[in-house]
This record gives sequence, structure tokens and C-alpha cells, in this order.
Amino acid sequence: MNVGVCYFPEHWPAERMKADIERMAETGLEYVRMGEFAWSRLEPEPGTFDFEWLERAVSLIGDHGMQAVLCTPTASPPKWLVDEHPGILQEEADGTTRHYGGRRHYCFNSETYRCESERITEKLAERFSDTRAVAGWQTDNEYGCHGTLRCYCDDCAAAFRDWLRARYGDVEALNRKWGNAFWSQDLNSFAQVDPPQHTAAGHHPARLLDYYRFSSDAAVEYNRMQVEVLRAANDDWFVTHNFMSQFGALDAYDVAEDLDFASWDSYPTGHVQTQRESVSSEQLRVGDPDQVGLDHDLYRSVTDSPFWVMEQQPGDINWPPYSPQPAEGAMRLWAHTAVAHGADVVSYFRWRQCRMGQEQYHSGLLAQDGSPDAGYTDAVEAASDFEDLIETIRPEEGANPSMATPDANVALLHDYENLWALEIEPNTPDFDYWRHLETYYSAIRERSVGVDVVHPSSDLSAYDVVIAPSLYLVDDGLADGLEAYVEAGGELLVTMRSGVKDVHNKLHDSRQPGPLRELVGAEVDQHESIPEFIESSLSYGGQQFGCRVWNEWVSPIGAETDVVGRYEGELADGTPAIVQTPVGEGSVTYVGTWPDDELAGALVGDLLERANVPTTERLPNQVRIVRRDGLTWIVNFSSEPLSVDAPAEATWIVGDSIVDDYDIAVTDASPSTLSVTDS
Amino acid sequence: MNVGVCYFPEHWPAERMKADIERMAETGLEYVRMGEFAWSRLEPEPGTFDFEWLERAVSLIGDHGMQAVLCTPTASPPKWLVDEHPGILQEEADGTTRHYGGRRHYCFNSETYRCESERITEKLAERFSDTRAVAGWQTDNEYGCHGTLRCYCDDCAAAFRDWLRARYGDVEALNRKWGNAFWSQDLNSFAQVDPPQHTAAGHHPARLLDYYRFSSDAAVEYNRMQVEVLRAANDDWFVTHNFMSQFGALDAYDVAEDLDFASWDSYPTGHVQTQRESVSSEQLRVGDPDQVGLDHDLYRSVTDSPFWVMEQQPGDINWPPYSPQPAEGAMRLWAHTAVAHGADVVSYFRWRQCRMGQEQYHSGLLAQDGSPDAGYTDAVEAASDFEDLIETIRPEEGANPSMATPDANVALLHDYENLWALEIEPNTPDFDYWRHLETYYSAIRERSVGVDVVHPSSDLSAYDVVIAPSLYLVDDGLADGLEAYVEAGGELLVTMRSGVKDVHNKLHDSRQPGPLRELVGAEVDQHESIPEFIESSLSYGGQQFGCRVWNEWVSPIGAETDVVGRYEGELADGTPAIVQTPVGEGSVTYVGTWPDDELAGALVGDLLERANVPTTERLPNQVRIVRRDGLTWIVNFSSEPLSVDAPAEATWIVGDSIVDDYDIAVTDASPSTLSVTDS
Amino acid sequence: MNVGVCYFPEHWPAERMKADIERMAETGLEYVRMGEFAWSRLEPEPGTFDFEWLERAVSLIGDHGMQAVLCTPTASPPKWLVDEHPGILQEEADGTTRHYGGRRHYCFNSETYRCESERITEKLAERFSDTRAVAGWQTDNEYGCHGTLRCYCDDCAAAFRDWLRARYGDVEALNRKWGNAFWSQDLNSFAQVDPPQHTAAGHHPARLLDYYRFSSDAAVEYNRMQVEVLRAANDDWFVTHNFMSQFGALDAYDVAEDLDFASWDSYPTGHVQTQRESVSSEQLRVGDPDQVGLDHDLYRSVTDSPFWVMEQQPGDINWPPYSPQPAEGAMRLWAHTAVAHGADVVSYFRWRQCRMGQEQYHSGLLAQDGSPDAGYTDAVEAASDFEDLIETIRPEEGANPSMATPDANVALLHDYENLWALEIEPNTPDFDYWRHLETYYSAIRERSVGVDVVHPSSDLSAYDVVIAPSLYLVDDGLADGLEAYVEAGGELLVTMRSGVKDVHNKLHDSRQPGPLRELVGAEVDQHESIPEFIESSLSYGGQQFGCRVWNEWVSPIGAETDVVGRYEGELADGTPAIVQTPVGEGSVTYVGTWPDDELAGALVGDLLERANVPTTERLPNQVRIVRRDGLTWIVNFSSEPLSVDAPAEATWIVGDSIVDDYDIAVTDASPSTLSVTDS
Repeated sequence: MNVGVCYFPEHWPAERMKADIERMAETGLEYVRMGEFAWSRLEPEPGTFDFEWLERAVSLIGDHGMQAVLCTPTASPPKWLVDEHPGILQEEADGTTRHYGGRRHYCFNSETYRCESERITEKLAERFSDTRAVAGWQTDNEYGCHGTLRCYCDDCAAAFRDWLRARYGDVEALNRKWGNAFWSQDLNSFAQVDPPQHTAAGHHPARLLDYYRFSSDAAVEYNRMQVEVLRAANDDWFVTHNFMSQFGALDAYDVAEDLDFASWDSYPTGHVQTQRESVSSEQLRVGDPDQVGLDHDLYRSVTDSPFWVMEQQPGDINWPPYSPQPAEGAMRLWAHTAVAHGADVVSYFRWRQCRMGQEQYHSGLLAQDGSPDAGYTDAVEAASDFEDLIETIRPEEGANPSMATPDANVALLHDYENLWALEIEPNTPDFDYWRHLETYYSAIRERSVGVDVVHPSSDLSAYDVVIAPSLYLVDDGLADGLEAYVEAGGELLVTMRSGVKDVHNKLHDSRQPGPLRELVGAEVDQHESIPEFIESSLSYGGQQFGCRVWNEWVSPIGAETDVVGRYEGELADGTPAIVQTPVGEGSVTYVGTWPDDELAGALVGDLLERANVPTTERLPNQVRIVRRDGLTWIVNFSSEPLSVDAPAEATWIVGDSIVDDYDIAVTDASPSTLSVTDS
Repeated sequence: MNVGVCYFPEHWPAERMKADIERMAETGLEYVRMGEFAWSRLEPEPGTFDFEWLERAVSLIGDHGMQAVLCTPTASPPKWLVDEHPGILQEEADGTTRHYGGRRHYCFNSETYRCESERITEKLAERFSDTRAVAGWQTDNEYGCHGTLRCYCDDCAAAFRDWLRARYGDVEALNRKWGNAFWSQDLNSFAQVDPPQHTAAGHHPARLLDYYRFSSDAAVEYNRMQVEVLRAANDDWFVTHNFMSQFGALDAYDVAEDLDFASWDSYPTGHVQTQRESVSSEQLRVGDPDQVGLDHDLYRSVTDSPFWVMEQQPGDINWPPYSPQPAEGAMRLWAHTAVAHGADVVSYFRWRQCRMGQEQYHSGLLAQDGSPDAGYTDAVEAASDFEDLIETIRPEEGANPSMATPDANVALLHDYENLWALEIEPNTPDFDYWRHLETYYSAIRERSVGVDVVHPSSDLSAYDVVIAPSLYLVDDGLADGLEAYVEAGGELLVTMRSGVKDVHNKLHDSRQPGPLRELVGAEVDQHESIPEFIESSLSYGGQQFGCRVWNEWVSPIGAETDVVGRYEGELADGTPAIVQTPVGEGSVTYVGTWPDDELAGALVGDLLERANVPTTERLPNQVRIVRRDGLTWIVNFSSEPLSVDAPAEATWIVGDSIVDDYDIAVTDASPSTLSVTDS
Repeated sequence: MNVGVCYFPEHWPAERMKADIERMAETGLEYVRMGEFAWSRLEPEPGTFDFEWLERAVSLIGDHGMQAVLCTPTASPPKWLVDEHPGILQEEADGTTRHYGGRRHYCFNSETYRCESERITEKLAERFSDTRAVAGWQTDNEYGCHGTLRCYCDDCAAAFRDWLRARYGDVEALNRKWGNAFWSQDLNSFAQVDPPQHTAAGHHPARLLDYYRFSSDAAVEYNRMQVEVLRAANDDWFVTHNFMSQFGALDAYDVAEDLDFASWDSYPTGHVQTQRESVSSEQLRVGDPDQVGLDHDLYRSVTDSPFWVMEQQPGDINWPPYSPQPAEGAMRLWAHTAVAHGADVVSYFRWRQCRMGQEQYHSGLLAQDGSPDAGYTDAVEAASDFEDLIETIRPEEGANPSMATPDANVALLHDYENLWALEIEPNTPDFDYWRHLETYYSAIRERSVGVDVVHPSSDLSAYDVVIAPSLYLVDDGLADGLEAYVEAGGELLVTMRSGVKDVHNKLHDSRQPGPLRELVGAEVDQHESIPEFIESSLSYGGQQFGCRVWNEWVSPIGAETDVVGRYEGELADGTPAIVQTPVGEGSVTYVGTWPDDELAGALVGDLLERANVPTTERLPNQVRIVRRDGLTWIVNFSSEPLSVDAPAEATWIVGDSIVDDYDIAVTDASPSTLSVTDS
């Protein structure tokens, strides 16, 4: 439970370094991340290295009782390298080169660039291998940012062919598994496969899905190369990578296999603008606690261990459409929220607003003139809060105790391959994998229940409830696993667009949900996407609710299957929409539509009740309760103060039962003993 | 009057073929179309052919009393062919290659591809020339789909130069006829002409119009090559091509000259979404009868003979923005509507939902698991209805009598060259050639009058009424023809944006309508395009009506010309908008604006009355009456049941006087004896 | 005070020339512009010239007492030249060639094209050097039209490197001044710099700003080459260039240094559509007097002398989204407005609507059939009005007296470099440099005060009031100049986004407004961009006003600084927004937001009052009063007639105290003695 900061000594005159680092220590910071864009300063000319400035920074950081996190500088190769090897640049699907001038200007499949990256990583690793103040490393920076995960260059073409050869063995297998008889797409050799370049008509879904897999795999391989170099130099270092919010092109589970823990870069007022169609004024000021929470829970779950927020928004930022000022205290609110969800370190981006380059409109803890900005005050307070919390729960362990991950009764199944396949064939402009996932995430979180966001192939036996939104690609193995989970007493909820395809993105030859039909006791007669102007509703538990985007006409096939929800009005009037089937010790619910928030709340509420999971009443919007390691956070992302009703014996460690707007409180009472009202 | 189906034996294991074809016969299908994307299965490697599976299918089809329609497989050349001849790929105007990966990845002007196409066509034609079960051929598939009619590659550049040389003889003529003095565009040789590639400023309208003509001609030539090969192999075969709905880039009249009859691919719930700005919930479920009807009437008129619907929507489909389920019975409703408008065969696309490739979200008569889907039921019923109808009207002729085309009192003039020229210079974002045409089409059809959609150069003498919406390119010959038509007693209505240009897309040196000024007795003083927020209205026949998009300030110049409509309010208050002139035995009306539906109804109603054309009262929206060969269809595209008041002697052959929502009825009573009310 | 016309003799048969020119003279025209797109007619083949037709036209013009303005024909090189030198074509940032087919298809940095341009300019200049009827020249045509000012080709790359070398001397200086440590952008040599081509992430703001400067400089150099050739041939000729409305990519101040006077092309009903988000129906018919006025005042100020409207809209035009008919009299209204703002000549574009090429939908004074169109009548009347006015004010000087520029008490600071830097980092989709400038321009003009639109480096001592909207790039020199201005008694208003950056587009190391902090007595604590759905308001002078787009939280730092405006409601409630500081004899107001029109009116009103500038009451929208050379114009761009209350001694020279809709009147009374009410 620590606070850190991202620091760019190369942006400032050398003489300021000492004062800056001194002040960081005073602020209460524990970690300082550096170097992720410094290649041109570390190797100003080919083979000429200048590590002195970075060594000095690390050394000063150590002197002041802090630790350094170093980064491989590979996200931005210098111009001399690009000019020497222009082939490392990526290409768009239409053949346009992605030129030098921004960042991430390299292809993961360039052998040349892998060599260059290995070389600089080795040099750095070697140089710092004995430096005690270096705690660990971040590889590169935000793989895939700016749409760079997928490239369409000749290196990718060659690598894709190899990838396919390895996966399919012979081209006839590929033809069969992709389904290349369609539109005369049979291939005679792997050499005939190209990246999915610009075409007049759309691409084959199997080819696209494999290209997406291949592209993610290429980044995973590239990352693994760096990890191996770093580990070889010093086995005590941790290695992590800073992922992005709800980013789809890279499979974080795969990358995480090579990491000690995951980290991610959290910009609540930015992401809420770019990931949502409409934003409330509160969200513009602090973001949405469920949007942030979903990322926290995902990046914690990928290694099933505490994670870091490697970059935490420090104030107003430059890249979203609008750059409002965060609410007073927002930067502390976010730090607490991160820690409550399982973060070990919250590292603000960045120490000081930069006077040059592409991010001048991005604030720092200090303003460009070196004076403390709003984020500074919040960081100081957060650091101090964390000390209090640690003192309370682990007085014996000192400053940096290891902490448990948060409690989670529910597993929310999440899979990048499902996301990719549904991006390839959304079949309506309104479907969005992440938004659909969030509908269920929020319904769980508004009852203060902990969630792991896990891959469908995970061991689910520890969870009381499993929710599987749009489990699109399903094979028999997965179906069997889910059945075993339910048989043993699990409560499973499966939703629309599940069991549609095999792993090659081909329709099953049974009706949807394919291999899950027996388990859910139903099949889908028809599905339809519907525009917003067609009102769609259904009855569930005697009440009418709204549904939207995608309606499936469900037909029970199981002997014990109950229809528990039916569409009302218009074409599908009376048609089953939701069914429920007892299986062994547990039960399965199938929801053939995208529920509105009320319906999701009712469905999830009933599910949690059946599973005997302790909950709170449904919390107000923008208010959440999180439990970790014996502590309970009330995080208030709303503009109204709250009153928390807690048991008499509850202790308030930070704040108290009146939680101000955009404020937090921490108690030892468990969530289900609390209730929250507007103050 | 038959039902058929599109079938892809290559998508399914060989062992299913027999059962599938047996079931088709049971369903009542008469025709099975195959092979349009099967090149990679017909010639798996260069020069190695495998026709066996197709022969087997044809043979089974014949065995079961059905007939096969084969297709040339040229819409999707296999990858080995593309790799051998990458020059066959098209290019965008900005030079980007349209790569392999979808379909239609070839340039019509590639000599190489013409040879390859001829080769495979010859092979197939030769192989099936003696196979009795093959009734005829479809050439290629949907020329121009996915924006592929116009290409900008080097082959096109060379071919365009030849085309211009042939058309203009010497470059001075081209300079003069195009008007190249403008912006220094004089050319010294044909070799200087390029395709209209990406430029900073817009292209010369004469150059563009000729490029559009050239591009259409290239497809026509390409198609003719295939037709000739097929005819040479077996003169008894019919040859057709499946056109697309309201597609603009290809001149269907020109293609049709080489066909026995036209066919087109009808997807009512898709086209209504892609061709309309707003769609009602009824239209989302069944489409708009006038949108569908206009295509039927166009593709019937291009050869003045019965046509086919080669692909009829079978249920929900994958390509429009939204994929709602069609209303119950929609697939039967569409089949009847097609036949009423003159279709001989309605062939559903496709037998079974495909498990692979780009169209997995496109339903079939059977679902992907082989069970009957909604379309199946409708197809069975339609096939049975058609037998009843044939039995009634041609009991002596058996299953497949030749039928007359529908009655048509009105000719609606339609010309791709006008469409192209107006696309080049729309002069407002709101003008759309097809929507403007539809305004008049609907006004005619809502009175149950039959329409031919014909080229302006056609013989018009048989029509009581001729409507010429935006007859943009007019020369003296055309003007003379129209004058002769009116002199002889015809009723002609000409609308705004007529007589503006010569055939080279140059303004006439007289004011609009140029060569038609004398005939319409008026000229246009000013024209203006107006945004929606400026209300525009006019008075006609003592009533106020709305008008929109384009207003012309009309000035009568004929001695007998009457002003029958004047703008009201704002700048043009009191200015003539509509004039009428008696000419010989007939009269001409000029409408200088785009009327709203009420005004179009009033104008067309008056016109039909003057021409003594029998009509019904104006029908409700989504309800139409069609007359063909002694039968009258009431087609109800609305969600409300109708009551039809018919003469006592009327016989109901299908259904009766109560026509349910989305249902049809057929009687022998003539349209003008009927009246329709909400039931 | 004259009327002219643009004429294209090459578009018409030679035999019409004489009659056309005769009629021009009868119309009252004094100047005829010709030749700007005639290269293919002047040099039909390389080295073969045909100037005869142009000589004949000039000669006839002289014979009829008019004068010719000739143009260099370089805006549209003929195809033979492009084919010989394809390298002259421009490239997009993504490498796509901007091909031949429109106009402006050449790169300013092509040495080849500079030679070719020099060659044709010399030939023409030489040929006409002794021709008395040629009054002067227009260079090229609308530099930068169609987005062609910036190109990304190899010639540009080479020239950009030279430009940087000359500006920075050594690459280390460039690294330091640009701030290339950011994202590893340090360069080792100038040869490493490319144009800012297509990238995945955004470009460095310093690199972009210098590329924009370089691109403008290239056009300036290119223009200078032509000017020098022309001056060398005949020193008595004037040389001008026709600029475009509110065009941003070219620095008009720099170009103007080489011109005798500026001219610009005014299309009020077009520009109001392309430059505004919403347009009233009045503006659709005549444009907005402030939009037109701002351009007039800018292009007058760039040489501080009377200017020309080289192209004045003659009626409906082809290029805006909508092409409404201008109101009756609009073309006369625009001519008067131009003259009132300081135009010497208003030259209508064009004599006759052209029958060919890209602008057929653009009207002329004559319609395509040669009959007078609406513009003709207005031009005749304007010419006659101007004779009356000249007769009144300079009876002794005859037809063409030199006139003073309009009175201007206010300087509105305007700088293309600020515009470019803010385009590079707008930090909100809603910021627009020109719209923000217009907010203040309108607030001044609605009180009938004259404005010069001047570069910040100008001598400001003559102005009572200086308004500096978003003076973004500020160095100490500029700060000192402004301080001296205020010390000496000036009234200065500085607005949000001022003093943010140094000249290299790097943040100052002090808080905003950087070098202006002392002068304005305040600094900016925070800034934020806010979407429209967040209401934002402030109190000023006891009243509540709206503000928008960009709010700065201002903190007074001066001892005498008064907070005169504070935000109200939401996050910034009570925070200072506007401060005022007395400095020497004058005072400075800092406005930290974009005021709504009412607030701008109040701020500017108070400012003018403090500076004792005589004003009228705030005029109604679309009504303006302009003073020039002892004459006062009332221009009524509204659809309602006005009544003007004037002193008893006032003389009405054109019109009288009732000014009809879209009409004008001219009196000798000074503006502040007038008041206007709806009639």
C-alpha cells in the first residue's frame, strides 16, 4: 500500500534532480518509475551509451529511502535507429507506413527490432543488475497504444505464415478449420496467406480471428524476450508491464504469464469519456467507480495477485476530448479505490508537468513552474492515509507489508478471443463487449460483492457465482467445465451470444448456445439486433423491465427448465427470453438479451441470494464498497455526501460515517453490515 | 410463377447432398442456383479441374424434377490466380490496392482476367452443354457490389484512353466537347488522360461522367464476353445476371441487351435500412412495398419481359446495420409481391445457413442445424399458392405457363447517365436521384396504377402518362421525342433539374430546361438548394403543400402556359413553381421543386385523371395493389389487417377480403373496382 | 471606389469578346481581371505561346476606357507540364499523390515548378510590359485553396531541412529549442528531419509549428519570385494576390510585404456556411456583416492601405453545402460594405456563368445564356452609387480619387502563429481561433467602432484600445511592447490562452500568462475545457453571464489587481475569472474564459468607455455602421427595415433614414450621432 511517481529526469536540467528527488521523499513516495522513453538519451548515437544521468537518479532515489522502477526504452526507438532500419516501421492495412514522429513506431514482428530491443535491454539490465535501489522493471510502455498492436507489413506476413504453419500443420487443415470453401477462399499453401489488407468486401472471420490471435501472440513473444533478458540479469527484480484500460487487442492473460504482477495506467476522467457514449457531470470530474473497478479487478485477476497502478491520473490531462479539472480530492479517491481493489502501489503520472513535446497539456503533481499542483496535495494525503491503514492492520510488519487480494465471491468470465470474434461480427452497431460485461459487473458491485474477472478456462470451484456474458466461442471442454461447476453446486448465469461459434469462428452445427444447450436447457430459435427506436421489454418475476440491442427467442429444451422471463409487446410478444434450469447441486440461468440496469440488478440479486452470498442493499450510483484484507472502503464518486450506517463495534480508520462528496472512508466492519444513505 | 433456391453444395459434406436435394423437391422448389463462388473448388489448382461434385448436384436436381441454374464463378478468383496475376486487382482513386480477402477482387479492364474468365467459363459451358437439367446461367454475381464497379488502375487508364479515342476520334474534339479550357485542362493527346485519381480540388464533370460511362461499359463488355461463351455452348440456355437494388454505377439497360431476362437480389429489410434516412418499425420488419416494387418494375422493364428474383431474403440477414427478424409471413409476402410485379421465379437465398465465412449471420430456409427456419414455412406456402394461381389462370398449361408482364399505364423515365451526372454535381447534400424518383413512383402506385421504369430513349407511345423526374441530360433528339409523345395526346410531367446539361455534362447555352423550354412553355430563372431548416411551401389547386431540397423559380414563356403552383412565403413568395401547357392533343406539366408526398399525390392524381387512367383511391401507406395477367394482388406490408371491398362477382383465389397484417390476397377483380379500409 | 469583374475570354468563342467588353463598359465596370487559369491556352504546347487572344481582350478593354488586371496562370499548370515533371505534384501526409485533375496541383518547394512559373511569368510580363491598359497583376490564385498549402513530398523534406539549418544553425540547438528529449526525439543531424508524415501517435508540437511556418514561408518565397519578375518588367504595375476568407495556413502579413495591396475573395453566403456551426435564414441569404467585416479589416490592415475585393460573390454559388439565392440587392449590399471597410475596387466573380468545368453551378453577372442575372442589376446600381459618393466627397478629383482607410480606434491583435499553435493543441474540440476572435470583433463592431486587425508586433500607440484574444506565443519583447502601450495610457484586454508558450511551442516555465503575468497582475492556477452540457457562468459588474469552452481559474498576483468577474456554481464557484489592473496611465483586463456575446458586449463596452471612444448603442444583429473618409454607411444585413435617427444637419447621400431589408444608406453624420431602431 504505497504511493509512487513517474519521473523524467531527462526532461529537466541535471541540477534540478537532487531537489526533485528530495521532495519526492518528503511527499511520502516510495517508488519512482523512469526511463520508458529515454532511448535517445541512453544511446545518443548507435553504440554510444550515456547511462550516467539515470544511474545518478537511481542512486539519489536509493539515498532517499525510495526505490526505482526502471523501464526498457523500447516504446520509442530513436530516429537514428529508424533511419538505419526503416523496415521496423509498421504498416496500415492499406499499406500506408506508420512513420516516425510519435511513439510506438515499430513492428513486433521485425526481427531487426527484436535484436535492437534485446541489445538495449541487455545493456541496461547488465548496468543496473547490482544496483540495490532498482526494485524491478516495466517492459516497454502500453503495448498497442494508438492502435499499434496490429500491423500489416511484410514481416508480419512472413510471421503470420509461420504462426499458421505451427498451428495447423498442413494447409488442408487450415482450409477445413477456417471454412475456406466460402467465396472460393481455399488455399494451396501457407505462402498464399497475407495479412488482412484493405479489401472491397469484408474479410473471412476465421482469418481475422487468427490474425488477431497472431498479433497478440507477437506482442507476448516480444515481451517475453525482454522479460527473459531482465530475469537473466537479476532474478530478484520484479518484472511488470503497464496495460491500458479496457484495451482489446492484446491478451493480458497471455502477457501476464511472463510477469510477476500486472500494472495498468488509470485515467478515470479520460477513459470515461472515450469508453462511454454519455457522461454525467460527476463522471466528468472523477470517472465511474465501476469502470475503474473493472480494470482493477481484471488486472489483479490476470496474475491472481496484487497489482500496481503504474500511472495514476494526477489532475487534468491532455488526451480525452475534454480536459475538465478533477474534483477536489479526486486523486486521493482514486488511490484509495485502487488499493481497495488490490493495488500494492499507486504511482502518479508524473512528477512535474512537462514543458515540451506531445503531452504539455498533461498536468503533474507539480505544475510546470515546480509549484505543487492539486495532485500533490492528494498524493501527500493518500500516502499518509496508507501509513495509517498499514499501522492498523499490520502494526508488526512496518511500512510495506504484503497484503491479501480482495475477497471475491463472483467470477465474471472474460476472454479476449470472445471480444475479438464479436468485434469481427458485431451484427449491430450497438453491441460492445466491454459495455455488456460492465452491465453485469455493476449489478454485482452495487451490492458490494467482490468480483474476479477471469478467463473461462480458469478453475471456478472457489466461486459461489459465475457470470458468463457472451461466452461466444465454446468447445466441449469448456462446456464440460461449466457443467462440473454447476453440478457441484455453483450458480451460473450465461447470457445472449454464448455458445455461438467454435474456436475457428465458425458456427456450431447445432443451434446456439451450441455445446451449452444441454447445460442451459434451452436453445435459441432466432436472434435479432434491434435499433433503439424499437422499444423492447420483458417480464421477469412479475415485473416489467427493459432490454436492448440483441434479443434471442429462447426455446426451453430441458425437462426441468423454467421460463422465468418473456418478451412483451411487438413481434416477440410472449416468447421466452430467460430460462432457468436446476443442474445437480446448482442451477443455470440463461439470459437471451442485454438487460437494462434494473433487470441486471434483479437477475444478479436473485443469483446472489440463491448462492447465499452476503450483500448490501443496492448502493446509489457512483458509490461503492470494497473489501480487502479486513478493511472496508466506502468510495464516494458522487457530488453528494453520504451517511454510512455501521454496527456499533465498527472502527473508522480513515474518515468516519459521514463520507463527503468525492471522499472515502475506511472501516473494519464487513460490507454486508453497512448501509448507505444520502447524507 | 415458381419458387427456387440458391444452394452451395461445396459448403457441406458430400454425403448430405442427396438428402438436401430431395428435400428441396419436397418443398416445392423448381430451380436451384449454384456455383457463383466455387472457383477454388472447380479448379483447385491452375489447370486442374474438379467438376464432379457440381455434376452430381445437377444430376440429382434433374432426377428430382427440378432444374439447375449455374453461375460462372468469376466473382471470386482463387488465391492462386491472384498470386499469379496480381495486376488483376483493382485500385482505389488514391492508388491503394483492393486486395484479395473478400470478393469481387478483379478489374473489369484486366485483359489477363478477361482471358482467365473466358477460360473457366468455356470449361464449364463445355462440360454442361449437354446436361438437360441445366436451364440456364447467371453470369458472375452482382457486378459492382462493394463499390467495385469503378477502378483506377493502369489497365483502366489504358482502356479509358482507348474508349475516349473511339468516342471522340481526335483530342481537339474531346477538348471542345468536355470544355477543357476551364482551369487549363486542355489536352494534347489521349495519352494524357488518366483515371480521375485523388486530387485536392474536384474533377471536371465531363471527365467524371465519361469515366462513369466507361466503367459501366467495361462491365458490360466483360459480361458480354461471358454471355457469348455460354450461348456458343448451348443456345437453349437462358443467360441472366443478378443485379442489385437501386444500384447506380452499372447501366442495367446496357447489360440487359445481352441477357435473356434480368434478375435481381431482393433484401427488403436490408435495403430499407441502407437506402433510407429513417425507417418505420413496419419497414424494419418487411421493408417498403414501393422500394421493392420500384426495383421489380425496373428490372422487368430493362428487357420488357418477366424477370427473376435470383436471391430473395429468407429471414434475418447479416449486412444491414440492424438485423431484425422479418415479420411472420414476410418471406411469402415478398414472393407474391415479386410475382405480381412480373417475376417468373423467386429464388430464396439460400438453402441453409452457412457455418463458415463472411455470411454466417445470414439465415437460410434451413437453420445451420438443418432444421426448417421461418423462411422454409413461407417458401412452402408460396410454392403452394403459386400452384393454385396457375391452376386458376392457366389450367391447361400445367406447372410452368408463360405469363404476361403486368399492366402499366405509366412510364417513369429513368437513366443512369442522369443519375451519374447528378451525383457528380448534386449541389446540395440532400438531393438523391433514387429518392426523388421514388416520390413519383409512390404517388402512382398508391393509386394502384402499373408503372414501367424505362429509359428516356424508349418508345413511349403506349403509355397514357409519362413522368420524367430530373431528366438532366437532354439533347434535341430527346426533346423531339417527348414533344411527339405529347402532341399525340400524351400526358407528360417533367420535374426540376431537367434539361440542364448536354450529353457531355456541359450546361446548355439556354436557360434550363434547355431543349425542353419550348415544350414545357417555361424556363427557370433561378434555382436554389435549401437546407431543411428553411420551410418551403407552395400553393397548388387552392391548397398549400410542402416542397423541399431544390426550388426553381419558374418563368412561363409559352402563350398557353398556365401557372398552376406558386411558392408561398420567404424569398420566393408568389414566384411560379409549377406550370402547365397544352401541347397538341396532350399537355405538359413542369414541377420546379421536389414535392412532399401530398403534393406528389395531388399532381399525379390530376395527371392520371387527365389521362383517364383508372385508379383506386389513394391507398394507405405500406398497402399496394398490383395487377398482372388477369390477377390482382393486395399486398399488405403493414402491421394492421385490411378489409377489401370488392365487386360481388370477384373471386378470391388466395385469401379473401380480410387481409391480415403482412399477408396477401389475390382476386380476379381489377384494381380500380377495389377499395381498401382498415379492418 | 470602383466596380470590376472577372472575365474568362478563353471560355467563349472569340467572336463574343467585343460585345462582352462593350457591355462591361456600359455596366459601369472599371477593371477586368483575366488569365488566372489560362496556361493551357497561353502555352498550348511546351514553348509554343498564344497570347493573341489575351492581347486582344486587353486592347478592347483599354478601348472601352477600362483597365485590365492580369494574373499569372500558375495555379493550374497544364497536363503536358505535369506529365513532363510529375515531381511537381504534392503529396498528402500519408504519401498519397495529389494528382492532376482539379487545380493547385503543384508544390511550392519544387525547384522545377519555380523555374516553370518564372518562365511563364517572364513571358507574360515581357509581352504586356508596355501595354497601357494593364493596371497591374494578381499573382497566381488563392494560395493554399483546397488544403494545398502544406505538402509532404521529398522536395518539401529537403527544403524543410534547409529551412531548419538556416534557422537553428546546429542540430543541438534544434533539439534544445524544440524539446526533443521528449519521447526520445533527439536528432543527430538535420538530415534526420522529415515532414510530419502519417503516424500512429501525434506529432511533436514544436516540429509541427515549424513545419507550418516553413510551409507558409515557402509560399511567400514562391510569390516573391513572381512579384520580382513582374516589378522588373514594369514598375508602375501594382501587384496583389487574392487571399481567402479566414484562411489559416498562409501568413498574409508575410505575403503582404511583397504586395502593393492585398485583395481577397468574398463569398458571404458560402463562408457563413463553412465557417459557422449554425446559420440563420438571414445569414443564408446575405451572410454575416461581422464575418465579412473581419476579413475586410484584416486584409486592409495587412498593408495598412485600401484593398480590393478581387472576387465578389455575384449570386448563387456552387461550393457551399447549400446554394440559396442571395437576397434581392445582396450583391450591392456587399459592394457597399466592402467599400465602407476600405476597399478601392469590388470586382465581381464572374462576368458570365460558365458552361463547362467544375464551376458550372456558379452564377455570374450574366446567366449562361448571356442575359442579365440578379448580380448584374446590383452591380449596375453599385457602380452608379459609387459615382454619386465620389461626386459628393471629391468632386474635384473625378472618377477615381484615392480614399483614406476607415477610422479605427481599436486594434484587434491577430497572429497566424498563434492560430497554428492552437490548432496543433486545441485541447478541446470546441476551441476555434477565428470564432474566438470574432466574439470580440462583433462586440466592438456592434458599437460602430472601427477596428484594425493587426499583428502583435505592430506599433500600437495610435490605438485607444487593444484587444488581444488568445495571445498564445509570447516572449519578453512582446510583453514589453504591450506594457509600454499600457503605461502610456492604453486600454488593453488580454484573454484566456495567452502567454502560454514560447516561440518554439514549449510551455513557459512560469504559469500562464508567462511573460505577461506581471502586466496582467494575475496567473492561471488551472485551466479546463468543458463540454457544452456543463453550464458555466460568471458574475461581472453585478450581473450573471454565460461563459464557455475554456475556463481558467485566475489568481491575482498584483497589488492593485481587482477581481472583477468570478465563476458561479459547480466546481469553480467563486473562483476569479476576470481581473483588472491599472498600469501607468492605462489599465489591463484579463478575461480567463470565452465570454458569451452579452458578456463580451459588456466587457468591450466598459473598455471603450474607459478609453473614451465614441460609440453608438449596441446595434441589432446583422446591422452595422461603418465610417470611412467622412462617410458613414448603415448596412442592413437583416430581413427587417430599419429607421435611423440622425442629427438634423445630416445629409443622406445614398438612401435615407429608412433603410430597407438588405439595403444600405450613406450619410455624412458620424456614427456616434446615430441611433437605429426597427422600422
